[in-house]
Amino acid sequence: MRDVAIIGIGMTRFGELWDASLRDLAVEAAVECFKDAGTDRYDSITIGCMSSGLFTGQEHLASLISDYLGNKGNPATRVESACASGGMAVRTAFMEVASGMSDYVLALGVEKMTDVGIGAATYALATASDQDQEAFHGITFPGLYAMLARAHMDRFGTTREQLAQVAVKNHFNGSMNPHAQFPTKIDLETVMNSTMIADPLRLLDCSPITDGAAAVLITTAEEARKFKNKPVVTIRGVGSGTDTIALHHRKNMLELGAVQKAIHRALDMAGITIKDIDLAEVHDCFTIAELLVMEEMGIVKRGESGAAVMSGLTALDGDFPINPSGGLKSKGHPVGASGVAQIYEAVTQLRGDAGKRQIAKARWALTQNMGGSGGSSVCHALQSNN
Amino acid sequence: MRDVAIIGIGMTRFGELWDASLRDLAVEAAVECFKDAGTDRYDSITIGCMSSGLFTGQEHLASLISDYLGNKGNPATRVESACASGGMAVRTAFMEVASGMSDYVLALGVEKMTDVGIGAATYALATASDQDQEAFHGITFPGLYAMLARAHMDRFGTTREQLAQVAVKNHFNGSMNPHAQFPTKIDLETVMNSTMIADPLRLLDCSPITDGAAAVLITTAEEARKFKNKPVVTIRGVGSGTDTIALHHRKNMLELGAVQKAIHRALDMAGITIKDIDLAEVHDCFTIAELLVMEEMGIVKRGESGAAVMSGLTALDGDFPINPSGGLKSKGHPVGASGVAQIYEAVTQLRGDAGKRQIAKARWALTQNMGGSGGSSVCHALQSNN
Repeated sequence: MRDVAIIGIGMTRFGELWDASLRDLAVEAAVECFKDAGTDRYDSITIGCMSSGLFTGQEHLASLISDYLGNKGNPATRVESACASGGMAVRTAFMEVASGMSDYVLALGVEKMTDVGIGAATYALATASDQDQEAFHGITFPGLYAMLARAHMDRFGTTREQLAQVAVKNHFNGSMNPHAQFPTKIDLETVMNSTMIADPLRLLDCSPITDGAAAVLITTAEEARKFKNKPVVTIRGVGSGTDTIALHHRKNMLELGAVQKAIHRALDMAGITIKDIDLAEVHDCFTIAELLVMEEMGIVKRGESGAAVMSGLTALDGDFPINPSGGLKSKGHPVGASGVAQIYEAVTQLRGDAGKRQIAKARWALTQNMGGSGGSSVCHALQSNN
Repeated sequence: MRDVAIIGIGMTRFGELWDASLRDLAVEAAVECFKDAGTDRYDSITIGCMSSGLFTGQEHLASLISDYLGNKGNPATRVESACASGGMAVRTAFMEVASGMSDYVLALGVEKMTDVGIGAATYALATASDQDQEAFHGITFPGLYAMLARAHMDRFGTTREQLAQVAVKNHFNGSMNPHAQFPTKIDLETVMNSTMIADPLRLLDCSPITDGAAAVLITTAEEARKFKNKPVVTIRGVGSGTDTIALHHRKNMLELGAVQKAIHRALDMAGITIKDIDLAEVHDCFTIAELLVMEEMGIVKRGESGAAVMSGLTALDGDFPINPSGGLKSKGHPVGASGVAQIYEAVTQLRGDAGKRQIAKARWALTQNMGGSGGSSVCHALQSNN
C-alpha cells in the first residue's frame, strides 16, 4: 500500500446559498483546492453526496462534476453513505491512490439542500434511516436522536444543560470560522429557550439545512514532497464500519458500534491510540451525537460525556478539543460535504493555519463522520509532518 | 498493486419481481454468490445502485444491505454512476483489494425499479442526463438515444433492419439464459412492427424496466488459489472514463469518448488488444448503443457496425460474440445491477459454465458498462486461468 498525503484543500462558505447550484458549489470548492495545492492535476475524482437525486433531480453526479471541471475524461465515482458520504469519498480516493490505480485524486463532498421545501428536505434526509421500518412510519432524524438523548438522560442522568453546552462550545468555535453558516456565539439560556423540535432536543441542538462543498486533493506521500509551499499532511489511518440502520434493532442503542469500529480501525491502522490525538472533528448533527461519539472514542467513561463537556475537556483550550471548526452545529451540515469539511479543518489545524481557533502544537487529528443514526461511520487519522 | 480474482458470482432472476424488495434482491444475489464461492467471508461491501432514493425512498444503501446480510459491522460503500453504477462498484472493490485495505470484498449491484409508476421511473432514469440542460426540458433516454440512432442513419446509412438485428441477436442469446427477463426469440419483423417509442426507436429497440441484483466476491489472486472448486478468473484490466453528460456539448455525438477511454484503459492495463478478447458483454440499453460501442472497441470501422451485425460478426458463433447473456435488451436492465451482471456472464463463460450459449475456448472477456448517454463508462478485462 502506498503512503497517501493531502496536498490541497478547498471549501465554499456553508449556508443557504441561493445563487449557487449543485455544480457551482462543487466547482468552487475544487478550484479553491487547486489554488491551495498549487496544481490542478487530478487523474480521477470521487464525489461524496447523499442525495442529489432527491434534492435536485440529478444523479450521475461524478460525471457531471467532471464535465464542469473541464471534461478531461477522467474516472469519476460518486460515493454515498448518507451523511457519511463525504468521509467515504475520501476513503475511496485514499484506496485509489494507495492501490496505484491513480496518482492524483480529487475527493469532493457536496450537497445542495435548499432548493426544495422543508418537507421535501426532511423526507430526503429520512431516507438515511430504514425506509421500511422507520421513515415510512413517520419518524425523522430529530425524532431518532431525541430518543437517544432521552435514553442517555434516563440512563446516566445527563442534563439539558450538558446537551446545550455542546452547542454553546461549538458556536463559540464557529464564531471564528469564516466558512461557518451560523458564526454566532450563543449561551446556555438561548439554547434551552429555543423552539422545541423533538423533546428534549430544541432548535439549537440541531445542525442546520445547508448548501456547500469541500474538496481535498490527495496523492502519494512521495509526490507530495514536490509541493514545498505547504506543510504536508498524511493520511495515516482510515477506518469505517456499519451497524443496523434501524435504532430498534440494536442491542444497546446508546452504543454506536459503527463509530466504535471506525475509530479503532483508523487508530490501529495509524499505529496510535486516542491519547495521541491533539484534536478531533466529530459528527455533531445533534448535540447528543457529540456526547455519544466522545464515549465511543474512550476519552471519557460511558455516561460521563455530559459532565466532561461542562468541565471544558473538549473546549478549544481543553485537554481534548472537539470541533474547533464549529462542527456541523455552527459551521453547517451540507450532508455529503460534511465529512470532507472535517478533513479541511483537520488539515488547516495541522498546518497551523487556523488563526484564532488554532490548537497549539497540533500534530495528530482525528475526523469522525457518521451516517444516519449511526448506521455507518468513517474516520481518518491525519498527521502533520512538520 | 495486488492481483485480484473473482471467486464467486450470484444473481437473481431479472424481471418484474413484485414479491421481492430492494433489500431482498440484494441479499438473494449475495447468498447465491457465497454458495458459488464456497465461503461467506467478506471484509467489506461495495454496492452499485443508481437511484434507490428516487425508486424506493432508501439512501444509506450499503449500510442497509450490510445490516440485512448479518450486521458484521464491515465497511460498506455505495457507488453511483447512473447505469454504470454496478461496474463502478466492482472497480471500487477491485481497488479495495488491490490496495490491501481489505482481503475479501463483495461487490453487488441492485435496482428495484417497479415499485413506482412508469412516469416516476422515467423521471428517475432521466436524472442520469444533465438535469438543468436536458431532463428539465422534457427529454428522456429513449429520446436521447433516438437522436443518436437518427444521426447514425443519416451519417452512415445505417438501416432500421440493422438496428433491429441487434435486438434479434440478443433475444436469441437471452432465450438460453435462465436469468433473463424476456427469454423470448424475436424476428426482424416483430422488432420493426413494435410500438414506436421515439422515432426511429421502437419498443423492442429498448431495454426494459427491471428489478434485480447481481454480486461477485473478489479477493487477491493468492487467496483465490485456496478455492479449488471453480476455475479462477482474474481481473486483469480496469478502465473507466467520463464525457460531457449533455449530448449537445459533445464535439461529435457519434463518438462515445468515455467508452473509448474505458475500453483502452482496461485493455492497456491488461496488456492486451481487442483482438485477444473472446467475448464481450456491452451496454445495449438501446440497439443503437451496441452499434456505437462496437465502433469504439475498434472491431469495425466507424459506420460499419450495422452491416457487421447483419453479417453475424457478433453472433454467438461469430468471430466476436457480443452479449451472449442476451444483454440488457433480453436479460433486463436493473440499472445498478447491470454492470455486475455483465461480469457474472463473463465469469460464467470463462469457467465454461454457460451451457447452450457457451463460447468455445473463451479465455478473455471484456465487459463494458455505461452511464446515461455515455457520460461515463467502465470496463473490465477478465482472464480465465484454466
